[in-house]
Amino acid sequence: MGGLYFEDVEVGDSYTAGPYRVTKSEIIRFAQQYDPVPEKIDEEAAARSIFGGLTACGPHTFSIYILLTSQLQPRLHFLGGLGWDELRMPNAVYPDDELDLDLIVLEKRESRSKSDRGILRLRIILRNQRRETGA
Amino acid sequence: MGGLYFEDVEVGDSYTAGPYRVTKSEIIRFAQQYDPVPEKIDEEAAARSIFGGLTACGPHTFSIYILLTSQLQPRLHFLGGLGWDELRMPNAVYPDDELDLDLIVLEKRESRSKSDRGILRLRIILRNQRRETGA
Repeated sequence: MGGLYFEDVEVGDSYTAGPYRVTKSEIIRFAQQYDPVPEKIDEEAAARSIFGGLTACGPHTFSIYILLTSQLQPRLHFLGGLGWDELRMPNAVYPDDELDLDLIVLEKRESRSKSDRGILRLRIILRNQRRETGA
Repeated sequence: MGGLYFEDVEVGDSYTAGPYRVTKSEIIRFAQQYDPVPEKIDEEAAARSIFGGLTACGPHTFSIYILLTSQLQPRLHFLGGLGWDELRMPNAVYPDDELDLDLIVLEKRESRSKSDRGILRLRIILRNQRRETGA
């Protein structure tokens, strides 16, 4: 099984994935299921919203970020996520945006309770094709 | 248009939504699209994972939380989310779990730059049918 384990990763290492192209139909389909407010599923309502058009809902952007972390090359083996701090989405994601991901290792320490694993603190940035940060 | 606006909400107010029942097929379908690692999409691989079975991926849990915020009664009118701090998922979400949401208003202030809106700081808790906090 390829990919990187805790012991293979050093502070300062960085990895990238993407781009992922977000389509209008995916934006609408996702929002219909998980954020079914008019401005996320209807183009006319979206045009009148503060975003001026259809934009991906927050969990959709978050989902794309997770998808891209699963596409890092080489693969990083995660057992699970302990949490997220300072999750920010300063720029909306519009149809046909292309998102890529940068992951930087800020900190690593071995688990105090379980000797077969460790904990990484990561900085993860999504950017669109205009190089604006998305999350 | 019903629902609550900024001026209708006070610090200390709380709102609830749910329950939302999470099915196995929804867990697998979501992960196939956004977190396609073996332990999220395959029952045998999941049984060998640290969770001991299929569990909803992080963005799926996040999506259910957003869905429940859109189902609060009365509805709260949000223009957008500025961000999330301390997003934690201390307990896994398993098939047939039923999640409900508690939202508490911690702080409110008017926007400095835009007089027609304000900013709320919220504490939002997802709980399953065993009353464990999910996010």
